[in-house]
Amino acid sequence: MPMGKKLLAEGFGTFWLVLGGCGSAAIAANFPYLTGADIAPGNPFGLGFLGVSLAFGLTVVTMAYAIGHISGCHLNPAVSFGLWASGRMKGSELLPYIVAQVIGGVLAGGFIKLVVAGGPAFDLVMAGSNPLATNGWGTHSPGGYGFWAALIVELVLTFFFLLVIIGATDRLAPSGFAGLAIGLTLALIHMISIPVTNTSVNPARSTAVAVWAGVEAMGQLWLFWVAPIVGALLAGWVYRNVFSDQAS
Amino acid sequence: MPMGKKLLAEGFGTFWLVLGGCGSAAIAANFPYLTGADIAPGNPFGLGFLGVSLAFGLTVVTMAYAIGHISGCHLNPAVSFGLWASGRMKGSELLPYIVAQVIGGVLAGGFIKLVVAGGPAFDLVMAGSNPLATNGWGTHSPGGYGFWAALIVELVLTFFFLLVIIGATDRLAPSGFAGLAIGLTLALIHMISIPVTNTSVNPARSTAVAVWAGVEAMGQLWLFWVAPIVGALLAGWVYRNVFSDQAS
Amino acid sequence: MPMGKKLLAEGFGTFWLVLGGCGSAAIAANFPYLTGADIAPGNPFGLGFLGVSLAFGLTVVTMAYAIGHISGCHLNPAVSFGLWASGRMKGSELLPYIVAQVIGGVLAGGFIKLVVAGGPAFDLVMAGSNPLATNGWGTHSPGGYGFWAALIVELVLTFFFLLVIIGATDRLAPSGFAGLAIGLTLALIHMISIPVTNTSVNPARSTAVAVWAGVEAMGQLWLFWVAPIVGALLAGWVYRNVFSDQAS
Amino acid sequence: MPMGKKLLAEGFGTFWLVLGGCGSAAIAANFPYLTGADIAPGNPFGLGFLGVSLAFGLTVVTMAYAIGHISGCHLNPAVSFGLWASGRMKGSELLPYIVAQVIGGVLAGGFIKLVVAGGPAFDLVMAGSNPLATNGWGTHSPGGYGFWAALIVELVLTFFFLLVIIGATDRLAPSGFAGLAIGLTLALIHMISIPVTNTSVNPARSTAVAVWAGVEAMGQLWLFWVAPIVGALLAGWVYRNVFSDQAS
Repeated sequence: MPMGKKLLAEGFGTFWLVLGGCGSAAIAANFPYLTGADIAPGNPFGLGFLGVSLAFGLTVVTMAYAIGHISGCHLNPAVSFGLWASGRMKGSELLPYIVAQVIGGVLAGGFIKLVVAGGPAFDLVMAGSNPLATNGWGTHSPGGYGFWAALIVELVLTFFFLLVIIGATDRLAPSGFAGLAIGLTLALIHMISIPVTNTSVNPARSTAVAVWAGVEAMGQLWLFWVAPIVGALLAGWVYRNVFSDQAS
Repeated sequence: MPMGKKLLAEGFGTFWLVLGGCGSAAIAANFPYLTGADIAPGNPFGLGFLGVSLAFGLTVVTMAYAIGHISGCHLNPAVSFGLWASGRMKGSELLPYIVAQVIGGVLAGGFIKLVVAGGPAFDLVMAGSNPLATNGWGTHSPGGYGFWAALIVELVLTFFFLLVIIGATDRLAPSGFAGLAIGLTLALIHMISIPVTNTSVNPARSTAVAVWAGVEAMGQLWLFWVAPIVGALLAGWVYRNVFSDQAS
Repeated sequence: MPMGKKLLAEGFGTFWLVLGGCGSAAIAANFPYLTGADIAPGNPFGLGFLGVSLAFGLTVVTMAYAIGHISGCHLNPAVSFGLWASGRMKGSELLPYIVAQVIGGVLAGGFIKLVVAGGPAFDLVMAGSNPLATNGWGTHSPGGYGFWAALIVELVLTFFFLLVIIGATDRLAPSGFAGLAIGLTLALIHMISIPVTNTSVNPARSTAVAVWAGVEAMGQLWLFWVAPIVGALLAGWVYRNVFSDQAS
Repeated sequence: MPMGKKLLAEGFGTFWLVLGGCGSAAIAANFPYLTGADIAPGNPFGLGFLGVSLAFGLTVVTMAYAIGHISGCHLNPAVSFGLWASGRMKGSELLPYIVAQVIGGVLAGGFIKLVVAGGPAFDLVMAGSNPLATNGWGTHSPGGYGFWAALIVELVLTFFFLLVIIGATDRLAPSGFAGLAIGLTLALIHMISIPVTNTSVNPARSTAVAVWAGVEAMGQLWLFWVAPIVGALLAGWVYRNVFSDQAS
């Protein structure tokens, strides 16, 4: 498969991940658009955490079957790092993949901002603790979790994300189901951790909305590059040395 | 497969899509049937956006396995246009497919109206901003989004819908999973965009309920033919020229 | 496969369908156990319509893979009738299958009553409009729908249920996915119609709880035998004469 | 497959089951963190019973495809006992598997406690009737169910869990779908029974959080070893003697 095709697939795919995940969070999670002071009780149309979790998961399930045969459907720098650590990806492809993911994601972040600006909730969305679904800790954690909780949650959840990705694409695993298992893992990860960090496990997804959300979101962005990538590298190392066929 | 069989399958299938998607929205999304002034707090039985999104998605998942081998299970003029643009469908089949889809959908719209008329919420449903789950912008957008937001959302989401449809049915994609991936994509699309346009991405679905909802719904119907079809044609062109085997 | 094995599988399977569907409805749909007068606002733990719909669907998804290879996993007299009408089942097996389904279901209805009696909500559950998740119309319709709405909804939804069942198990359909498609169809059917009849499309499921719910539930039971079976017979006839290979 | 690899897989997998299931329950089910006296009406972000049920189910779906080819992905002493009773597992592997499951689970229980301690709801979570998602009856049943209801529910639901596990992995069942069917069965089991016992059907999961929740949770732990294992042994015996090929 030519590299240009792969990179375009990663770009389109990461656009879809950010549009589906962060877009559903910004547009449909909190509907009708509520503030603490102006709540319509018993009108629970919004997606809530469960809906946003499933939306993130379905972006990966759907793209896995659409472009998995083209680029492998990483859509996430941590995934690319983890697959490299497990021996499934060439190091020379790492940087182009990540650039394509970040560009696709950032374009989607801008698209979401454009759509939200066309509705009545723009000011409300941008004034929240997590504008456009950014990630963060402390005052930027949806549930008020601190730095260390954010760090260990992102690291451990990305570790398990990669364990499923590498395991489910092992040649011994049932063929065809990997896209489903991997996407549902991302859904499950959100079901656990939205209150803690708004859930990243994906540096491209965090960057995609942080750049449109202003200075404060950029200040905490580094953690959502470091923790997921460290967790992913650990998982790649563990699978390669403990679980793979070649492992003793 | 004889053309008559295919058209009957598209007709039954689009009936099912409209009955499942718009029917669940009209009958079960807002239950117990609430008005702004008469709300029973803490009684969240209704499906909400998540339930309606899954309902739309499941209509396609289920019909894909039931009639995919007969007609390809388009159930949507934009899908037929997109598949034609990608080189997967003969141009001569386009018009009959679309006619069958619209007839099946419109019959379902009438059936939903008949059922709702047999319950206590008929007046409430018909007086809402989106009676029988019609699509619209401005005062006919569930969340009050304007024309341009509606236009770009319908166009971009249909683009990605077709990208998944064409990609997941590529001969390189895992066999059998396309119905699941495509249906879940429709669910995800609704999870993002119900607040914006009540989500169409399907001219037959929009027409199916607009004709039973009165003059105002018909006045905005044209956008839900134009935007989805343009988005679908773009996706067909992109896949054919960028991602397919034949693409350079 | 010996007949005794098949009948035991149908019995166990229908027990599971009723326990999962009606049990989740009776135990977990309305939690914390609320009355109109005593509602804890903003405490939405209960499953609601979406959760109960998914529960019914998952009973069939899970049993389809567990016992599909033993008995075909009908779990429903209407399904057995529809498969007979489509030419997929011997007429001599119809009665024993239905007896096994009803016995399994009724045992599950008793089990649910026993469990509910061990909790604090027994009186509340039994005094509701649909005790133990019975089906009905008029005052026994959750949303107050009348007789004709109930009749056409049950008939049309069972028609489509059988269309998916027969289509998805056609030898031309992707192998292995039928259990998923069929179970998700049952979920979707509930997402549309719980407000109308509390959703039957299954005479064994209706009987299973009606016998434990008292005289009034038994008085409306006949409709939930007649309408689903008529809808199923129609679907079997349509598929056999219109869509199957043998059809002209 | 070497025994060391299998045990590590069971340990990682059970960590994931407890982290995903009990973690989502402790962190995201009841959000924003509410007390009876301090409720924000109409702010239903929390996962509720449906979200927690799906989270438990997805832990098994995802791990089944990740490590099913390594250890069989039991993650549950009752599952190991049931598979042994059905003749699918050597008795000599039973004890090591269970030890690995308990260790992995207990580590996850500690991890959840660590994360919750990094947020503002720690005292609220630990003071609830089911701290860290422990199981129980009476005052430790979320819905106030008594001992006998707890006993029969755990026994019968584990019976059906194992029936699906053994049936869906039968060589006659469609290949590849077992992980999906089994995980969704665990989701369904939770959708029925969270109000009764907070749902165990898994002694390792119950132990994993009981040890971190204090003396009272430990006092009721024995039931969540006895009832699931008895139910599982029964199912293994039934499948082997009634449904398997070798059965007459």
